[in-house]
Amino acid sequence: MSEPKIAIIMGSQSDWKVMEHAAETLQVLGVAYEVKVISAHRTPERLVAFTSTAEARGLVCIIAGAGLAAHLAGVTAAHTLVPVLGVPTGGGPLDGMDALLSTVQMPGGIPVGTLAIGKPGAINAALLAAAFMARYDTKLRDRLAAYREEQARKIPETPFES
Amino acid sequence: MSEPKIAIIMGSQSDWKVMEHAAETLQVLGVAYEVKVISAHRTPERLVAFTSTAEARGLVCIIAGAGLAAHLAGVTAAHTLVPVLGVPTGGGPLDGMDALLSTVQMPGGIPVGTLAIGKPGAINAALLAAAFMARYDTKLRDRLAAYREEQARKIPETPFES
Amino acid sequence: MSEPKIAIIMGSQSDWKVMEHAAETLQVLGVAYEVKVISAHRTPERLVAFTSTAEARGLVCIIAGAGLAAHLAGVTAAHTLVPVLGVPTGGGPLDGMDALLSTVQMPGGIPVGTLAIGKPGAINAALLAAAFMARYDTKLRDRLAAYREEQARKIPETPFES
Amino acid sequence: MSEPKIAIIMGSQSDWKVMEHAAETLQVLGVAYEVKVISAHRTPERLVAFTSTAEARGLVCIIAGAGLAAHLAGVTAAHTLVPVLGVPTGGGPLDGMDALLSTVQMPGGIPVGTLAIGKPGAINAALLAAAFMARYDTKLRDRLAAYREEQARKIPETPFES
Amino acid sequence: MSEPKIAIIMGSQSDWKVMEHAAETLQVLGVAYEVKVISAHRTPERLVAFTSTAEARGLVCIIAGAGLAAHLAGVTAAHTLVPVLGVPTGGGPLDGMDALLSTVQMPGGIPVGTLAIGKPGAINAALLAAAFMARYDTKLRDRLAAYREEQARKIPETPFES
Amino acid sequence: MSEPKIAIIMGSQSDWKVMEHAAETLQVLGVAYEVKVISAHRTPERLVAFTSTAEARGLVCIIAGAGLAAHLAGVTAAHTLVPVLGVPTGGGPLDGMDALLSTVQMPGGIPVGTLAIGKPGAINAALLAAAFMARYDTKLRDRLAAYREEQARKIPETPFES
Amino acid sequence: MSEPKIAIIMGSQSDWKVMEHAAETLQVLGVAYEVKVISAHRTPERLVAFTSTAEARGLVCIIAGAGLAAHLAGVTAAHTLVPVLGVPTGGGPLDGMDALLSTVQMPGGIPVGTLAIGKPGAINAALLAAAFMARYDTKLRDRLAAYREEQARKIPETPFES
Amino acid sequence: MSEPKIAIIMGSQSDWKVMEHAAETLQVLGVAYEVKVISAHRTPERLVAFTSTAEARGLVCIIAGAGLAAHLAGVTAAHTLVPVLGVPTGGGPLDGMDALLSTVQMPGGIPVGTLAIGKPGAINAALLAAAFMARYDTKLRDRLAAYREEQARKIPETPFES
Repeated sequence: MSEPKIAIIMGSQSDWKVMEHAAETLQVLGVAYEVKVISAHRTPERLVAFTSTAEARGLVCIIAGAGLAAHLAGVTAAHTLVPVLGVPTGGGPLDGMDALLSTVQMPGGIPVGTLAIGKPGAINAALLAAAFMARYDTKLRDRLAAYREEQARKIPETPFES
Repeated sequence: MSEPKIAIIMGSQSDWKVMEHAAETLQVLGVAYEVKVISAHRTPERLVAFTSTAEARGLVCIIAGAGLAAHLAGVTAAHTLVPVLGVPTGGGPLDGMDALLSTVQMPGGIPVGTLAIGKPGAINAALLAAAFMARYDTKLRDRLAAYREEQARKIPETPFES
Repeated sequence: MSEPKIAIIMGSQSDWKVMEHAAETLQVLGVAYEVKVISAHRTPERLVAFTSTAEARGLVCIIAGAGLAAHLAGVTAAHTLVPVLGVPTGGGPLDGMDALLSTVQMPGGIPVGTLAIGKPGAINAALLAAAFMARYDTKLRDRLAAYREEQARKIPETPFES
Repeated sequence: MSEPKIAIIMGSQSDWKVMEHAAETLQVLGVAYEVKVISAHRTPERLVAFTSTAEARGLVCIIAGAGLAAHLAGVTAAHTLVPVLGVPTGGGPLDGMDALLSTVQMPGGIPVGTLAIGKPGAINAALLAAAFMARYDTKLRDRLAAYREEQARKIPETPFES
Repeated sequence: MSEPKIAIIMGSQSDWKVMEHAAETLQVLGVAYEVKVISAHRTPERLVAFTSTAEARGLVCIIAGAGLAAHLAGVTAAHTLVPVLGVPTGGGPLDGMDALLSTVQMPGGIPVGTLAIGKPGAINAALLAAAFMARYDTKLRDRLAAYREEQARKIPETPFES
Repeated sequence: MSEPKIAIIMGSQSDWKVMEHAAETLQVLGVAYEVKVISAHRTPERLVAFTSTAEARGLVCIIAGAGLAAHLAGVTAAHTLVPVLGVPTGGGPLDGMDALLSTVQMPGGIPVGTLAIGKPGAINAALLAAAFMARYDTKLRDRLAAYREEQARKIPETPFES
Repeated sequence: MSEPKIAIIMGSQSDWKVMEHAAETLQVLGVAYEVKVISAHRTPERLVAFTSTAEARGLVCIIAGAGLAAHLAGVTAAHTLVPVLGVPTGGGPLDGMDALLSTVQMPGGIPVGTLAIGKPGAINAALLAAAFMARYDTKLRDRLAAYREEQARKIPETPFES
Repeated sequence: MSEPKIAIIMGSQSDWKVMEHAAETLQVLGVAYEVKVISAHRTPERLVAFTSTAEARGLVCIIAGAGLAAHLAGVTAAHTLVPVLGVPTGGGPLDGMDALLSTVQMPGGIPVGTLAIGKPGAINAALLAAAFMARYDTKLRDRLAAYREEQARKIPETPFES
């Protein structure tokens, strides 16, 4: 695969069951990506190392997934100009409401574009990153349009169809 | 001003007191934008008219602000490939929790990158849109970096400074 | 079956496990209905096509069920004068609280009469639509009264009865 | 005014500051209504007296507004076949979340069509009741359509207009 | 068993799995009780019939359990001077938060003493009713004291004990 | 005034603005009471001293009001057989939701009958305590009945009355 | 094992499945501890007995875990100068939100340092207590540093590693 | 003042209106402290610089206050072995619930002892830090005991005292 345009990072290995849907979606759209486990809390040096090269390596977007007090997206955004999308991976006793608020309620100055809790959010983070890239990449734009059309086509007219 | 790159749309005139912070931030960053009031519920034709030309007119991003059952961002995203960022403008008896969930909890397939409730979210929507554009615009990239440095510089070392 | 008086629409096929209770209830009451899958986000054209003929086709009420950021009921109501009842179908990490707020917190001007999350809401949407129709249909009024009486009769005096 | 088609009832006199918006909206639409204060808790006999004649008096819909543990709409619905719409009037320490859940989460069998907390909900209850009636009243249907058009027309294209 | 002092009523047969813990506790304390299924919504006449004789039959307390928009306790309290304790039986998509708020947030004038959601609440409703009665019944007072002592005795000093 | 039958206790002096409504209601009903400030956290000895004599002094009920992590009612109930009613006095950033859950969610074994947040809860605690006492005091029973009737009478038929 | 420095107490035996993670963590760090079941509500005397000797016995910290209306940590803190950390053990219909608010929202004057709901909170209570002790114990400080390094080392670079 | 033992840090200057209560409390207890504004998001380098010397400079505890998606306490804890206490400073549309969850719901491995939202939390963070230090400082222990006694003494017996 060519140089990654998107980095998918996550706070712990267990977030992969959600974040793999971001990877799959990028795969379908033909967007090169890399995948890393980086804990904002337990491996802060890894986070600094990652962010310090993110822009120079040509990353277009970082998708960060984490649960509970999900600081990963916000802290990543604090260390780089590369835009960051956040996915509250959910789980835990509060079912992701903690991760959602920890990700979305960023104070003015350092943005995190936040998607839905869990799998829909992971898929949508990939689609949103691709949509931003599509403005500068006609072929990706057409693949994205095709993805949408295919998606609409797969919805049956009635719930009785199998 | 040159052709708008960003459209700032909002569900009602009263959302402007929040969304003007997105406009101000784009102004500071030198990103051309347009501003419209479009109600997903009360002016659905206006929404269709707007989205039907959004991509052809060269919009890079649509920032949509709305309150209560805030459907504007999601429905806009349903009608165009241009990426949509959503700002829950807050207010109302639930102080924007309804607008936040209505904006962020999009099902897989149609993404809305959601920012914080109210003013911080409006500022950050502008910054996030600009960060995506900065990848393809070196001068904007440098203005964004300068914005961040200025922002850090303005934070006093102690709270006692005036 | 005769011309449908009620349309039961839902955002995805998976909502049928909730919305079938609306269909069953209308069946019991002898009210003709149709069932469609229409996603406000993924099939917006289908929504426009549906709403553009809803009034002319003589629909008395549209019952719309959706989950997560449930925009279906509100956007449907924006496109037609036919009254819309909304059922937050629930599920997802927030167990339908997102769908409830997205459905019920409509701004003034475009109403959605909202029922409970999940199965009770689906049953009650059917009963409420029928109650409005019963004012103009004596036989339906009597079937509705019988339904209520039967319902009360089936509640045992003590919990020990089988 | 002619015989009332809609009854607007409320749990306490203080709910009028919300419910008057339902009355105003019906007035604009030319729908005859009556207004009563009926507390489900403090005047249960009054509730029984009201509901016992509601259907015979030809009421098409009852709009019930209450706050806190808002039982009025549900208990009214339990006593009559006339369809009931509920408005959580809001206020109190929980800002109407208690009234919303008390109104909307009705168990299957006795429906309450619930509108938004506070003023938007009061307006929309009137509009929804009128929309159900409009199916059987062409003139009202046209007034409703005009109301919507007027409503859309009053939304400015940009927030800068005064 | 002698004349019931306490009535345990519940909104549906399915609430018995929670409310049986109230019955068991009263049994242990030797307090006579009766058990009824009464739905505030589906059997309002049954509720009126029950409450109209409650005081005359010598009931000291009514314990009312219900779920979702739990109106049973509040509406019972509206119809009788006999004190009412409410148990939000829980369940449903909101896990009893709706039932809790519907039960506890009664407006001033008609009280419902509310216990915890589910089984602990059912046990405690029985204990609280008994505590009020114990003031006027020395033997019950002693049984209650013994119950408490036994309860404390059964708590192991460390969690390792079996 | 004669020997107090009810103790109104509260966690801090500032809770009096809520709890005075309990006192006023008892005054109206002619029930003797005492008022104390007892902090479960800052004056635990005072709490032990109070509870150790509560039963012997003939108290029929203790009404405990507190805010935030409101432990007062629960800890009081742990130290005496006298029944305890809890009033979440509200205030603070969470507007009493913390006090409500801290008061009502007692584990099985030690009951606290919980009333609504704030003033309605204080009034209702007094009414509920009186209702339990009324079973054994005919005159109080009649005063309570008169209170209810007066309360119903004061509710105007329409909201327009002054 | 030497004299305990930390006491792990919990409201019921069932909390051990959460609190054992605090014990395990202290074990790994080589910090002596004791474990007790103490119910603030059902065994208040046990709580007084425990706290009355806590400081004299040389305890450095008390870790208190409880669920529902979790008063244990706050009431323990009220009775001793030994610092108290609280773990909302979670479970119950509200999944620990009640325990969290009951533990963390202590009024000014009596502090409880609160950790996350459930297992992460139990682990972290142990780590936080150890971190305070490490300031005065070089060997513990080094074990804590090693624990952290080991923890970081165990996080794989990518989620695909087994 | 001697070398600081405690650092009070906060995410923005506006948090000082809450965090000054921590400073005042340390002042009263005679514990030396320093005060800094450090934004986890806008001045990440400042945070790294601060934490890199925190242990060597002899800090016993860091008290971190922040609002909204409050990452400051957690990220600080990730960079140092010095124990961290977190104060959700509150404010914003969600009144500090976002800051509370962002601070307290830390995943296992990096602890933050969290105090109440706002002023009570700031006071209690100071008291808790002092309580840990008091174990190794007899004079501080006595000042802490005196603080508690004074605090209890200032609580009036009844709310009527001025």
